[in-house]
Amino acid sequence: MRPAFFADVTFDSRPAWMGRNSNGSMATFQTLPGFREFYPGALARRNHIFRLWRQAARTFGFAEYDAPVLEPLELYKTKSGDEIEAQLFTFTDKGGREVALRPEMTPTVCRLVGEKAATLKRPIKWFSIAEFYRYERMQKGRGRCFHQFNADLFGEPGPEAEIELIALLVQCLCVFGLTEQDFYVRLSDRNLWFFYLEALGFDEPRTRALLVAIDKHEKLGDDAFKGYTEVYGSIDSRIKDKMLALTQVRNFEHLEQLIEGAFKELAKGETGEKLNNRLADWKKLLGGLEAMGLARFVEVDLGVVRGLAYYTGFVFEAFDRKGELRALAGGGRYDNLIGKLGYADLPAVGFAIGDMTFDLLIEQRGLMPKFVEAVDVYAVIGGEAERRAAFADIAALRAAGRSVEYPLKEVAFGKQFKLAADSGAKLALIYGGDELARGVVKLRDLTERSEREVSRAQVVAAVREFFAGGG
Amino acid sequence: MRPAFFADVTFDSRPAWMGRNSNGSMATFQTLPGFREFYPGALARRNHIFRLWRQAARTFGFAEYDAPVLEPLELYKTKSGDEIEAQLFTFTDKGGREVALRPEMTPTVCRLVGEKAATLKRPIKWFSIAEFYRYERMQKGRGRCFHQFNADLFGEPGPEAEIELIALLVQCLCVFGLTEQDFYVRLSDRNLWFFYLEALGFDEPRTRALLVAIDKHEKLGDDAFKGYTEVYGSIDSRIKDKMLALTQVRNFEHLEQLIEGAFKELAKGETGEKLNNRLADWKKLLGGLEAMGLARFVEVDLGVVRGLAYYTGFVFEAFDRKGELRALAGGGRYDNLIGKLGYADLPAVGFAIGDMTFDLLIEQRGLMPKFVEAVDVYAVIGGEAERRAAFADIAALRAAGRSVEYPLKEVAFGKQFKLAADSGAKLALIYGGDELARGVVKLRDLTERSEREVSRAQVVAAVREFFAGGG
Repeated sequence: MRPAFFADVTFDSRPAWMGRNSNGSMATFQTLPGFREFYPGALARRNHIFRLWRQAARTFGFAEYDAPVLEPLELYKTKSGDEIEAQLFTFTDKGGREVALRPEMTPTVCRLVGEKAATLKRPIKWFSIAEFYRYERMQKGRGRCFHQFNADLFGEPGPEAEIELIALLVQCLCVFGLTEQDFYVRLSDRNLWFFYLEALGFDEPRTRALLVAIDKHEKLGDDAFKGYTEVYGSIDSRIKDKMLALTQVRNFEHLEQLIEGAFKELAKGETGEKLNNRLADWKKLLGGLEAMGLARFVEVDLGVVRGLAYYTGFVFEAFDRKGELRALAGGGRYDNLIGKLGYADLPAVGFAIGDMTFDLLIEQRGLMPKFVEAVDVYAVIGGEAERRAAFADIAALRAAGRSVEYPLKEVAFGKQFKLAADSGAKLALIYGGDELARGVVKLRDLTERSEREVSRAQVVAAVREFFAGGG
Repeated sequence: MRPAFFADVTFDSRPAWMGRNSNGSMATFQTLPGFREFYPGALARRNHIFRLWRQAARTFGFAEYDAPVLEPLELYKTKSGDEIEAQLFTFTDKGGREVALRPEMTPTVCRLVGEKAATLKRPIKWFSIAEFYRYERMQKGRGRCFHQFNADLFGEPGPEAEIELIALLVQCLCVFGLTEQDFYVRLSDRNLWFFYLEALGFDEPRTRALLVAIDKHEKLGDDAFKGYTEVYGSIDSRIKDKMLALTQVRNFEHLEQLIEGAFKELAKGETGEKLNNRLADWKKLLGGLEAMGLARFVEVDLGVVRGLAYYTGFVFEAFDRKGELRALAGGGRYDNLIGKLGYADLPAVGFAIGDMTFDLLIEQRGLMPKFVEAVDVYAVIGGEAERRAAFADIAALRAAGRSVEYPLKEVAFGKQFKLAADSGAKLALIYGGDELARGVVKLRDLTERSEREVSRAQVVAAVREFFAGGG
């Protein structure tokens, strides 16, 4: 199945530089591999998705912002994690600056918020819809450019922020008609992972490297640890088993037992207060989501750790229930990033939904509407004199907000009625020599196939009335 | 006056790499010079502009498309003209391809149309709103990135295409409340220029170099010819005077005299049929614009020749009447470009409106509305038990399309009413302990300052009714 939404992605398998174009002649100007062209049909579908995402964000009181496509390379170095850094479209600009096409929004939105944090009303609830660029191997649901809906909430350290964001994430999917049958949100906690791995004796660099491995373990199996062992040596198999056991935690009761048992035991002499607080955070988060009616969408799953280096607390990812597609969305808390950029610290939680996997799911579920280009009115025009009369009315109708088509050149009447039907118009205005002589215009209802005449002066009012009556 | 719309452009005068951020600490992640951040207030204004441009395009039956930000460098070499080529953000990607951030849409839209020309309904009427990138000296109304509305009509060789496009251009400005007092469209003809310069004895490279000089003459005076004389030597001053006289043509009568007199004389033995046809095209174009009611916006002005290399026929530019700003929009016919890209020839006319100068004009004329972020409903919440009840209703209201805010944390009741007022909400829902015990919610009309109670089960219906009644 070839989904309509990214029908126009160019894949590497097509020779981009010497490919033959549709005429069979040599063309050297093909779209770059992994980049997308949106012909009008594809763009109508994309606009539909963006429109509903915007609508969902606004019901949650999130304000829209936008930011540069090109950023200083430095913004992503060490901030985004090695994987993203390796995939950057990066170059030196004419002013000698090292720059990169943005691979994600989070560092940028942190700069925007950090710059004006003192004057922004708290909590800061922002969203954006923008395009991002990563030079990576192309596969199903992944090109070298993609759009993301990003939502972030700044200024709230407690799990109340996660409740609001996970609720928005669910709403962004449900607003298309998706249900808990179609997708779910896996909820995890990097705090617990950090605590556990540190208690097992790993220092911070090792802990971070292990989290990268665990993030990939579901997909790669034991190979996921290669990167770690190459740098830090082998891992005791009993400890590895313990870690993998933690990835299997799938419900709150199990998590609670672990915290009350194995975790507190590891903590030994420590007070365990940190753990008690964390358990309280978990309860508040799950309780809030339940009160919002979202429990059916959310599953505890400590196997999720997120690949990005900057996450610090709760993390979450949305997947299709059938497990056929890549992650639909992902996010989490990143309380240290704004501080790392040189601004005053500000707690933050955010998530992103990518457009490509999301579109695949919507298509698979039959939830993408059919979009048909259609105008309201088609003007059928006799000769040159009639054209002058028609032009005045066409201009007036368009200024009044009606979409109007007409034949650019003189065309036989019969052919024009075919063009009128093709245009999708519900109403034809007929400017013949006879009508012009009598100072009238014929209105033909193209659905009902009925006709009536109005005086030239009444055309705009008559058309308004026609469409007010439901067309 | 600092216009709100590009308040967030970074200029070179601000040291981008070592600038101090708002906290006074050193920040190394500043926005690149000439790039724009759109905080929510600025984005609301941008969205307003884009929304009205889309609306205008749709009334003319134009369909929206989109295309890649990154393109093969080759696409712009020799196609766009030397000036644009020198300003490209260009680099070699990880696959060894020479690529460029798009500086304009025309070559790209030609590829899209060329690829599928055989299957697209004619005439092809398309528009897009997208961002473009040029590394140039920054000045008022010009950064290193900017948005353009692009509209193009393919498949029509006659001036009927120009009528439709110039009408759309005027509509894209009038829809904001601008009138013929605010702007006008200067209309010229590169065909006549080509013909005249060739008749004066210049070959094609010299003719193209002269048109670049004439394009800049209004701004630079005699310096505009430097580039030409450096390559091709000096120009006979009598011939230069003739050329400059042509730039002074400001109305159709004058143009007609020139064509019937000096032009036909230069043409000598030639039939002059080409000139007669061109005169007929001019009459059709001006007659059509007049019939559309647009004569008051359009002025003949042979001083306009357009800097881009690919224009072939009628060209036009829109300017503010006061002459204070850069060009608002520009366009023209480019019948050869699709063929040059390796596809079957297809006649084409297009124009672009840039967002930065346009925004300046709208601001100057006081035509930019004030946008205020506001939600519909604010939920005032007592303690934890009340929060659970409120969450269920908040989720239901948002799902029904209402925007709802609430305090993330427990806040005193009095403070919450202040937050409710700040949120812009027209309606507060009050979840107190007393209300909860009685199974009701209090609705407070924040405008009228009146209150009533409804049962919990009736909240969504009551809110719908409140806003249906005009809020």
